[in-house]
Amino acid sequence: MVPQWIIEKKRDGHILSAEEIRFFINGFTQGSIPDYQMAAMAMAIYLKGMTPEETAILTDSMMRSGAMVDTSSIKLPLVDKHSTGGIGDKVSLILAPLAACAGLAVPMISGRGLGITGGTLDKLESIPGFNVNLTEKQFIETIHKCGFSMIGQTGEIAPADKKLYALRDVTGTVASIPLITASIMCKKMAEGIDSLVLDVKWGTGAFMKTIEDATTLAKSMVRVGKAMNKGMVALLTDMNQPLGRTAGNALEIIESMECLQGQHAGEDLMNITLALTAEMLVLGKKAENTVAALEILRGHIVSGAAFAKFKEMAVLHGADVSTLDDLSKLPKARIIKPYLAPSAGYLAKVDAESIGRAVLVLGGGRQKTDDRIDYGVGTSGLAKIGDKVEKGQPLVTVHANSEEKLATAMGYIEQAFGLTDTPVAPPKPIVDRITG
Amino acid sequence: MVPQWIIEKKRDGHILSAEEIRFFINGFTQGSIPDYQMAAMAMAIYLKGMTPEETAILTDSMMRSGAMVDTSSIKLPLVDKHSTGGIGDKVSLILAPLAACAGLAVPMISGRGLGITGGTLDKLESIPGFNVNLTEKQFIETIHKCGFSMIGQTGEIAPADKKLYALRDVTGTVASIPLITASIMCKKMAEGIDSLVLDVKWGTGAFMKTIEDATTLAKSMVRVGKAMNKGMVALLTDMNQPLGRTAGNALEIIESMECLQGQHAGEDLMNITLALTAEMLVLGKKAENTVAALEILRGHIVSGAAFAKFKEMAVLHGADVSTLDDLSKLPKARIIKPYLAPSAGYLAKVDAESIGRAVLVLGGGRQKTDDRIDYGVGTSGLAKIGDKVEKGQPLVTVHANSEEKLATAMGYIEQAFGLTDTPVAPPKPIVDRITG
Repeated sequence: MVPQWIIEKKRDGHILSAEEIRFFINGFTQGSIPDYQMAAMAMAIYLKGMTPEETAILTDSMMRSGAMVDTSSIKLPLVDKHSTGGIGDKVSLILAPLAACAGLAVPMISGRGLGITGGTLDKLESIPGFNVNLTEKQFIETIHKCGFSMIGQTGEIAPADKKLYALRDVTGTVASIPLITASIMCKKMAEGIDSLVLDVKWGTGAFMKTIEDATTLAKSMVRVGKAMNKGMVALLTDMNQPLGRTAGNALEIIESMECLQGQHAGEDLMNITLALTAEMLVLGKKAENTVAALEILRGHIVSGAAFAKFKEMAVLHGADVSTLDDLSKLPKARIIKPYLAPSAGYLAKVDAESIGRAVLVLGGGRQKTDDRIDYGVGTSGLAKIGDKVEKGQPLVTVHANSEEKLATAMGYIEQAFGLTDTPVAPPKPIVDRITG
Repeated sequence: MVPQWIIEKKRDGHILSAEEIRFFINGFTQGSIPDYQMAAMAMAIYLKGMTPEETAILTDSMMRSGAMVDTSSIKLPLVDKHSTGGIGDKVSLILAPLAACAGLAVPMISGRGLGITGGTLDKLESIPGFNVNLTEKQFIETIHKCGFSMIGQTGEIAPADKKLYALRDVTGTVASIPLITASIMCKKMAEGIDSLVLDVKWGTGAFMKTIEDATTLAKSMVRVGKAMNKGMVALLTDMNQPLGRTAGNALEIIESMECLQGQHAGEDLMNITLALTAEMLVLGKKAENTVAALEILRGHIVSGAAFAKFKEMAVLHGADVSTLDDLSKLPKARIIKPYLAPSAGYLAKVDAESIGRAVLVLGGGRQKTDDRIDYGVGTSGLAKIGDKVEKGQPLVTVHANSEEKLATAMGYIEQAFGLTDTPVAPPKPIVDRITG
């Protein structure tokens, strides 16, 4: 097979065969197909698209480009969740122990934060001693012991994706549904799971700005997962404002631990987390339906099992869990300053991107992949869209480690909020459920 | 400026600014923009197109990526011709001395053959002693002395094109009108000419298979040339069968020398050559119109001036011109064998591609850029579409240097011809004239 003929076929809008896709991805992974041919192919895919069948084969060949986690020794239903990412998204930290309490195995491989989007690994590392860099053997052992484990990519998973993602980033081919689908799904499928629940976010703070785009991506990922014989459900959730009350690493750990202990019930974060976890339970056949599943999950919160499960996992990862029993022992910022409402009214806008930028400039995120994270900084006590506020009432509290960074962050914070005179309905946390 | 933002702009179908195009081409030439970004851009241009203004700026920036021939010392009108390439196309060898006889300066920089398409340089090198590798100084001096010179690219002209052409070849981005236009025109514009006549070929043996595609390319090139303040005319000519009677290097020199001495009048080769040269004379203000120009050109053939002019140039290039006075002294093949008509009838098909492949396998062309050429081999005495033939009449004569290659070539030759019972009209040599 000749690489440029395959590029030309896609360029002309034709459907590639399984052999052609596998030849291209294998060649790219091994280096016989150079970056410039992959770049031309990525642009052709961007502009001409791929069928669900092509996307599934692309996903499968990218998954097979590297090692796959061997979960065959685990006899529990293996179910994971993946989110397309947003500001204040600490769902995994609450969802995984809850799912483990309910009898699922959750082999969660997460990422680090880059730009304004935080990463689960960074949040976990704000817990003193927590080691996210387990070997695959330790990872499996941890799941055997407590039902879940949360680690970083082992480096051998889906090298084709690592190479392709870096290339897409500099060739204007990021926002392609088949390429995004394959990139996300190849890594999740390599985890050795039976089922996957997707949290596809839409809104100003999400990668997908409209419900339509988010729906297209959700459908594409669900179809690919099903084509690979996995149980699949996607929820479309709101990211027009940050999720929950906090943004920033240790601050998000605090909120998550509070959630696991029953606080923040009825808020957007808990509604979305419970809905996603309930879908996992149904897929893993631990509940008849989501109503029954929610009942089970609430029981694990009330009994204290969920919080205990998180601590059990954290101990196995080397963490000092006394910091979770006394959250004041987690990393803290020196300067804590509220931002006060400039007038009375109803909150019509709480812009996720502005809050994300504030956290980034405070040092809570990375501008470059090798930037160091300041775990204690961020925002807390965030007011939400629809809230009725009085003049001078705190809309958010900023945690900073320097006056200079505080001032820069406050510039973003001021832009984040929009007040109006008439009542505003809070956004619906979950707008759709996609099953095929 | 950020390269991927410019790629994204073109990807989304927007018009690039002059600054963006120049930044991209300069960066690509200098290496700060890597091949993979140029490959993605080329695919975006292929699929989204470029306006005539964008194409003109692309051409200009590619032209400026290298040296330009300094023709300022030449006071005659500087006019050249460019052909999009075909089988048996030896027009340049006849046209250039004719134009020089009529008082034009023709600074002709030509290419070598690759694949089934021959190259003017290879044809010239079949004349013993002919040196196509003049320095720019020698090139200009030759034009001063005899009005024209025919050389290969000096290596410093349009390095951006050299790089981009190699990349397009392996990324499925060859057949793009703006990219073809820029590639052809940047090199021609770097020759320091005032006007250019284009021979845009259409048909089964041409790059452009339909009149529509050829028209689109012709219009694009004429517009770009005019935007760069050059006199421009394009003729759309037939390439559904080989041009003239011969294909192969020395054989084409023989036919060209015969043409310069008045033979083959009224045949497709001479009709097209004279029409193109006449356009050059009008653009160079050496004739009021093409009717008057044709009168002048016929005079230079009848008087012997045209043939003498070619020999004058050949001497300046170091050639042994006794081989032109006695054409039997040019390189010859050992085996000369006619292919006979299998039945009587009218020739409906003389496939240019099959003849081209026959010449290639005989050793008259290159499969790879470093292949050596066998100058004596090829085909001669080709019958043409519309000819009435008797059974057993030679349709073409094959010149080979081995029985094995002859046999392979004959396989292609057999496929080249198609006979029918009813009379067939010969194809129109010139189907359109494009001036803007």
